[in-house]
Amino acid sequence: MTITKDWAETMERIFCPRSIAVVGASADKKANGYQYLRFLKDAGYSGPLYPVNPQRKQILGLPVYPSLTRVPGKVDYVISCINAGQVKELLEQCAEKGVRAVHLFTAKLSETGDANARRLEEEIGQKAKKLGIRLIGPNCMGIYNPEHRLTFNHDLCMEPGPVGAIVQSGGLAGEIVRLAALRGVRFSKVVSYGNAVDLNERDFLEYLLWDKKTKIILMYIEGTKDGRGLYQALREATKIKPVVILKGGRSKAGQKTVASHTASMAGSIDTWRVMLRQARAIQASNLNELLDLAVAFYFLPPLTGKRVGMIGGGGGKSVLASDEYEEAGLELIALPREVLAFLEGRAPGITGWLGNPVDASILAGINVKASELLQCMAASPAFDLLSINASEDSLFPGRMWTAFIREEVRGGIAIRRKRLKPVVAVMNTPELEARHLENWRWQSLFRLRQQLTTAGIPVFSSPGRAATAINKLIDYYRYQERARELP
Amino acid sequence: MTITKDWAETMERIFCPRSIAVVGASADKKANGYQYLRFLKDAGYSGPLYPVNPQRKQILGLPVYPSLTRVPGKVDYVISCINAGQVKELLEQCAEKGVRAVHLFTAKLSETGDANARRLEEEIGQKAKKLGIRLIGPNCMGIYNPEHRLTFNHDLCMEPGPVGAIVQSGGLAGEIVRLAALRGVRFSKVVSYGNAVDLNERDFLEYLLWDKKTKIILMYIEGTKDGRGLYQALREATKIKPVVILKGGRSKAGQKTVASHTASMAGSIDTWRVMLRQARAIQASNLNELLDLAVAFYFLPPLTGKRVGMIGGGGGKSVLASDEYEEAGLELIALPREVLAFLEGRAPGITGWLGNPVDASILAGINVKASELLQCMAASPAFDLLSINASEDSLFPGRMWTAFIREEVRGGIAIRRKRLKPVVAVMNTPELEARHLENWRWQSLFRLRQQLTTAGIPVFSSPGRAATAINKLIDYYRYQERARELP
Repeated sequence: MTITKDWAETMERIFCPRSIAVVGASADKKANGYQYLRFLKDAGYSGPLYPVNPQRKQILGLPVYPSLTRVPGKVDYVISCINAGQVKELLEQCAEKGVRAVHLFTAKLSETGDANARRLEEEIGQKAKKLGIRLIGPNCMGIYNPEHRLTFNHDLCMEPGPVGAIVQSGGLAGEIVRLAALRGVRFSKVVSYGNAVDLNERDFLEYLLWDKKTKIILMYIEGTKDGRGLYQALREATKIKPVVILKGGRSKAGQKTVASHTASMAGSIDTWRVMLRQARAIQASNLNELLDLAVAFYFLPPLTGKRVGMIGGGGGKSVLASDEYEEAGLELIALPREVLAFLEGRAPGITGWLGNPVDASILAGINVKASELLQCMAASPAFDLLSINASEDSLFPGRMWTAFIREEVRGGIAIRRKRLKPVVAVMNTPELEARHLENWRWQSLFRLRQQLTTAGIPVFSSPGRAATAINKLIDYYRYQERARELP
Repeated sequence: MTITKDWAETMERIFCPRSIAVVGASADKKANGYQYLRFLKDAGYSGPLYPVNPQRKQILGLPVYPSLTRVPGKVDYVISCINAGQVKELLEQCAEKGVRAVHLFTAKLSETGDANARRLEEEIGQKAKKLGIRLIGPNCMGIYNPEHRLTFNHDLCMEPGPVGAIVQSGGLAGEIVRLAALRGVRFSKVVSYGNAVDLNERDFLEYLLWDKKTKIILMYIEGTKDGRGLYQALREATKIKPVVILKGGRSKAGQKTVASHTASMAGSIDTWRVMLRQARAIQASNLNELLDLAVAFYFLPPLTGKRVGMIGGGGGKSVLASDEYEEAGLELIALPREVLAFLEGRAPGITGWLGNPVDASILAGINVKASELLQCMAASPAFDLLSINASEDSLFPGRMWTAFIREEVRGGIAIRRKRLKPVVAVMNTPELEARHLENWRWQSLFRLRQQLTTAGIPVFSSPGRAATAINKLIDYYRYQERARELP
């Protein structure tokens, strides 16, 4: 990929526009032309915001312009909420106004399967190309850039961070930001790009690779028109930044759904899997795994060792966690000499019984605090990573129960603060109904989860989900390490 | 298995004791001898409850007896919270008092790996056998029977239902009841049986097979001393009731952990898998899947068809749901003629675009209510099952968003009420922190989840989890159907 000044400038105008016109702005709350204005106002977008609508004078306190060409200032970026049939005319106006980038929220094009709509989409693409205008979409949500106060949905976290995302689906783009943010992940730039008549996944990948604010890249792809180009871009990108990909349209039913969603050819999943593996992309098999991988790469350093020390959980939970960690590829090594010595010092003979994972209910019986043991484990070079299993059920109610888990959480946080050793936590996500929200147990868990996340410890909702994400992270960094060692 | 009157009576005395003595009762809140009294009092156990402790006069308002033999009334069932070294003497007293069943919460026996402790456990087993006393445990939580107001943990739901569970781990026994109850599942009888020195998984399986209140059986097994016996009991049981099994100790690390947890030999997982498959047990690969299967069998009728009609979710979510349903083995068939006709009647040409799953965001655009379409789908013989994907992110905030999902939920509930067609729902479980609990979005979701569960619709937190559980349920009932057709 060759970066030109012109390319970089265009992409920056898309992701960081200095002014925005919303064409097809509306005062109807059910209209997207209203919602986009609302999003940008609520997010505090600071550049000029120009609603365009020939029938309105004012929306949300902003003066409305009858056409794009009547907007007084310079326009970097247009959000099109008008009908597909009006887009070609809009492009003419854009050219006249000097607009170089248009986001087509506008849909009902090739994804409808209608031959006329498909032809219209092609014509839109050709016209934009001729006029030198870059298109995002059609049929997509566009750009989320929290640092720039640019957003495509309501109530999204506006604190910026290092994760970029390229998401073919608009609904999923919002959902990925929303659900990852609940788990502490923060984003640099996200694009929802829909039918990709012009700018496609490859363009956005190259941009996020180039973008200094982005350290980790997530992708949700339904299909591509340029598999070879995507492969090349991925190979280049994964050498520098981890790229996590969820492929939609793996099954026959999924492929059909893809056609009516973004009019993409989903392609054979076997071919995709081989291509992604060869490009060293990190493959997620579902949305939760994509989020887990985002959490893992966001919170963890470049780990290359698989030896885990685990604490917490009763016996049954320790058994299940052992199984799931080992099945995913991690190693629960025997407790090393220095940890055995510590435990023997406190309770002679105990190490014939206690192993790794350390069953916290046994610890309680010998008066060893989880935080003390964690400290000892953190000091041992035998472990690459510590894991806290922080949600076991217990015999004891209320504060006694909370104190038990809090001790593990506190121990983990102390290690994280001093950066003694990478730490992860496993905490169940209870499937609550409204009537459970007041319950002390779930409120305590949610408080502890908040403490963990705030302290920079990634939290996963089952041992299997934790282990799968961590193991893929390690495999990625191991390959990077080997690749660097090659002559 | 031959049911004798004596056997049935003994088992009934264990699961429905008319009086209970807690030996090793304590006034110390950190002692289990206190907690058991607390559990039983809080649950409203109605039979006489006799705390036994030579050093106390009263605990929790109950008179305390210096020894079991000094208890005035007849004792059906003893909960032993004393040290292992005192158990043999307790058994003598039980024999004297005519007690036929003892639950040994008492632990630190063979699971410690200590040779003396292991010998002591054997001696306890032999002594009980000689005295004609049946043992539950040692190293376990005992019995939960909500109908009988008998429980082994605090705050457990005390509403009875048809699910029985046999759980080798005490912590997991409580957690399974607690987490399944959050999802609407109700239990008949649950036993945590630990080291199984006397009564084992086979005995409890035969009891739950015999028990008329139990329709579905869950098991968590770490190991068995009698694989052949378990296999025979399972073969018999699965012909009558679905038996879902989670095997702990599948990996090397897990097997080690099993040894220190319940002193079981975990055995080769390949052997287990073959054995369980041949016995037609339904295998769960982790705790969440065990819970999902409990939810599926609890809420769904004996389904044998795999043709799913799905509604809801935006395009991306519909794509991912298609993939996960098909990957699990379900079929997202093309929309049948009558559904196409209904949609064409409302929006001519739309069926070139709209398929199965029905993307609810497209429906909104043609003014078809999700509930109307669901009604039409429910009337079609083409579908065996309907699925609602009820948590998509949407452009619209607040009530507009809620109304959108509520419409799907309402439609599903109407079908469920009239029993037109089995319905399941998929609803994300957001991973919340304390600060998110007040958020309208999650509160709305939790309210809608409550409506679904209350109406008798099973809710799963991802399409993959839903599909895996449903597909296993269908495979089970299909086999039952075929087996019945054999000569």
